Amino acid sequence: MQIVSCNMSVSVDGFISGPEHLDAGFDRVQDWAHRVFAWRDRYGIEGGAQDPDSDLFETLYASIGAYVMGRGMFDTGEEPWGDEPPFHAPVFVVTHRPCEVLKREGGTSFTFITDGGVEQAVARARAAAGDKDVHVSGGAKIVSQAVAGGLVDELHLHVAPVLLGRGMRLFEGLIDTVELEIAGVAESPHATHIRYRAMPTTKAG
Amino acid sequence: MQIVSCNMSVSVDGFISGPEHLDAGFDRVQDWAHRVFAWRDRYGIEGGAQDPDSDLFETLYASIGAYVMGRGMFDTGEEPWGDEPPFHAPVFVVTHRPCEVLKREGGTSFTFITDGGVEQAVARARAAAGDKDVHVSGGAKIVSQAVAGGLVDELHLHVAPVLLGRGMRLFEGLIDTVELEIAGVAESPHATHIRYRAMPTTKAG
Repeated sequence: MQIVSCNMSVSVDGFISGPEHLDAGFDRVQDWAHRVFAWRDRYGIEGGAQDPDSDLFETLYASIGAYVMGRGMFDTGEEPWGDEPPFHAPVFVVTHRPCEVLKREGGTSFTFITDGGVEQAVARARAAAGDKDVHVSGGAKIVSQAVAGGLVDELHLHVAPVLLGRGMRLFEGLIDTVELEIAGVAESPHATHIRYRAMPTTKAG
Repeated sequence: MQIVSCNMSVSVDGFISGPEHLDAGFDRVQDWAHRVFAWRDRYGIEGGAQDPDSDLFETLYASIGAYVMGRGMFDTGEEPWGDEPPFHAPVFVVTHRPCEVLKREGGTSFTFITDGGVEQAVARARAAAGDKDVHVSGGAKIVSQAVAGGLVDELHLHVAPVLLGRGMRLFEGLIDTVELEIAGVAESPHATHIRYRAMPTTKAG
């Protein structure tokens, strides 16, 4: 069955980065990913550990048929991703600025959704993904909106063993509209991987 | 070897309670604890599950020789704890208001530390605990100070599968002065238990 999932790396104190995007705090939170083969291979970087943390990416990448992201993530990534972005699948970008569909090498396309927000982007991605899953990639705001909107079936948190003290929070201002259930935990020295099933809340309050 | 530990229950989004102390959000975050036998037994409440979550409390309680807490936690707890508080050990309360030592039934005493803050309270608790461990119980501010001050050897987080959206954060304003290492993870349907070893940071920045 097709699911919609998010994967987010966070510090123990709930930050996805320090005060700036892609800063030293971000690097510390993402270190568990940046050190493994599967992640590096996808971004064309040599080396990397072939271990259970890497396997986690292999499994994830193999399952995804389409992506959703916010405009901020697209704008930050477009240049470094280059002519052959690492998605190899349709990507739906939530934005207010209309833009033609961008086709890239290796099967990646970027379609800009200006109407209907993240809900519409997820619907389009679901249709484009076929039998495969949909991944809401980021940033934190789009992920929070998708989770709060009941659009996400599984939330995968990768809790890195770092305290940042300050920075950008994953769930800033999220409203309490979903219930979570622990679907599985994987231990590693580099991060604690917790999978949650998310369901629209049935409780009052 | 004697260690100083903290045990804190937090929501997935990093809150220890909703906006008010001991509110519905607090109950949701603490539910994994309030449902088990070992916790209930200690507070004189009947029933409760006898399962690995309960065993976790048994092991913790058996290891502790002295406690440290903030004045807020003492003030909130003093009345409900009654004549025989659940500690059965010396408790050192960090405060600015001097107060005589309070002796209670069952081996609990409350000593008020007005000089030297949490550092002095931990030192006193270490001496009082003998061969046993010291537990920094709360509230969040004292725990954060103790962690940031390098006074805590092990931080045990119990991540409850709930999103609160708003409330009191565990690590509000914590400064980045410690490094963490994952010491162990225990999975349960009710909370993900992560033990971190904490060490003063050696890195710049």
